[in-house]
Amino acid sequence: MNQIFSPTLTSAAAVLQDRYRGGVPDVVELNATLDLLFSHRSVRAYLPEKLPEGIVETLVAAAQSASSSSNLQIWSVVAVEDVARKARLAALAGNQRHILEAPLFLLWILDLHRLTALGEARGEPAGALTYLESFVLGAVDTALAAQNAVVALESLGLGAVYIGGIRNHPAAVAAELGLPPQAFALFGLAVGKPDPTRPARVKPRLPQDVVLFREKYEWGDAQQAGIAAYNERLRAFQSEQGLPVLDWTVQAGARVRGPEAMSGRAGLRDVLQRLGFGLR
Amino acid sequence: MNQIFSPTLTSAAAVLQDRYRGGVPDVVELNATLDLLFSHRSVRAYLPEKLPEGIVETLVAAAQSASSSSNLQIWSVVAVEDVARKARLAALAGNQRHILEAPLFLLWILDLHRLTALGEARGEPAGALTYLESFVLGAVDTALAAQNAVVALESLGLGAVYIGGIRNHPAAVAAELGLPPQAFALFGLAVGKPDPTRPARVKPRLPQDVVLFREKYEWGDAQQAGIAAYNERLRAFQSEQGLPVLDWTVQAGARVRGPEAMSGRAGLRDVLQRLGFGLR
Repeated sequence: MNQIFSPTLTSAAAVLQDRYRGGVPDVVELNATLDLLFSHRSVRAYLPEKLPEGIVETLVAAAQSASSSSNLQIWSVVAVEDVARKARLAALAGNQRHILEAPLFLLWILDLHRLTALGEARGEPAGALTYLESFVLGAVDTALAAQNAVVALESLGLGAVYIGGIRNHPAAVAAELGLPPQAFALFGLAVGKPDPTRPARVKPRLPQDVVLFREKYEWGDAQQAGIAAYNERLRAFQSEQGLPVLDWTVQAGARVRGPEAMSGRAGLRDVLQRLGFGLR
Repeated sequence: MNQIFSPTLTSAAAVLQDRYRGGVPDVVELNATLDLLFSHRSVRAYLPEKLPEGIVETLVAAAQSASSSSNLQIWSVVAVEDVARKARLAALAGNQRHILEAPLFLLWILDLHRLTALGEARGEPAGALTYLESFVLGAVDTALAAQNAVVALESLGLGAVYIGGIRNHPAAVAAELGLPPQAFALFGLAVGKPDPTRPARVKPRLPQDVVLFREKYEWGDAQQAGIAAYNERLRAFQSEQGLPVLDWTVQAGARVRGPEAMSGRAGLRDVLQRLGFGLR
């Protein structure tokens, strides 16, 4: 259907070498879209160039083309290009310099407000939206949409990085964006043209033995061995990149140790309730 | 970078006609990946064919190539092909016939167990995982991964549909898949080769005025007018498809009316806590 081969494509195994290092899985023959997906890297260094006309509309068209649970279309997006607003948002998201550098900062809004307002206008309450399930459905659908936008922008030679730090101060972000109740910036996405003098690298991932199961979940020797192999591969990557050399288990462990490692996000539940989310 | 043009491509506006009908936005020039994304439809009718060798590994490689917050890699996937297990899962997900018909059913697991177990093995608690924030981060990252798998499978001529109904009975699904505590099937994905005799159609979406904002969120006349236009366009689509003809506001309103419309998912919070999620 859309299996378009380009003469410049190398093999799938070659493309996946940086992703898995020693543990490349057996995959089907490469096509251009798989090549694009396998080659993803988060881009944090951009050229100081305005993006082409129509780029935001293109990314949103890709996002809206993603699946939507019961066609509820439960997300919105705020496109920020104003330099002063970007700076205020960057400060709220942990002073991430790449937000300032990116010509475009997209805020992906888990938006239960729209359906609530429509229900009120029709005199019918939207009570389901006060349950945790609706928040979960909204988070999933917002993420599906955003990922389509990322694939789209990478197909156009642009780069991006997700900004979870936008959840450090959700109430201040909501005020900055003029969000109504029951709307919340789930994550940001900094978008720009990658600076070729500061290239991003493909980050190695866990071997598939650790994350892919057949018929039943497993947590045993094969998974432990896979994690040990991954610790080695990630250390080799870190060493090549001049990064601090640390086992993944140590690095990830530090990140999930406790509330003090969460940049304020341990308070997310309370803030969401103040923003009007039921979560019951 | 990966901007590969095929001689068979029509214009972006033509491809987006079915998605927006009267309200096609101005987008950039089409490429093969944008064509694929814009043309997405959920496929619920499959040929009774086994999928090619290596397809699951390919989809998981695409999924693992998606961004991962702090590289936590906080999801797993269970690939179900066993007919009896598929039937039991289909029954738990609201008796959806397309799960039985699909040769492959992927269960996307929001997996806080792996990092918890690794922390225990090192004698370091993973306390951050007991907060709602970690659940939200996990839901987002699981969805980003799955959407990459969907783009990958569509590039190979396959089709899929997300199954939110897998959240109707999370504890029974966890037991069926042998999930440990703090692991939860966030959604399913039925995958197969589309049956050309029962084709799926592109679902129209809200005009961009309703979901895309510049600098600040808005809820005003332009949005109300966009929703009214969308109600008309969706009715035309439903009429063409021989579906019940209903305004989107009525259809979506019925879906979010209250707990009785939620197929048991109003109890999600309690079930998740029984499955070991803190959510605090």
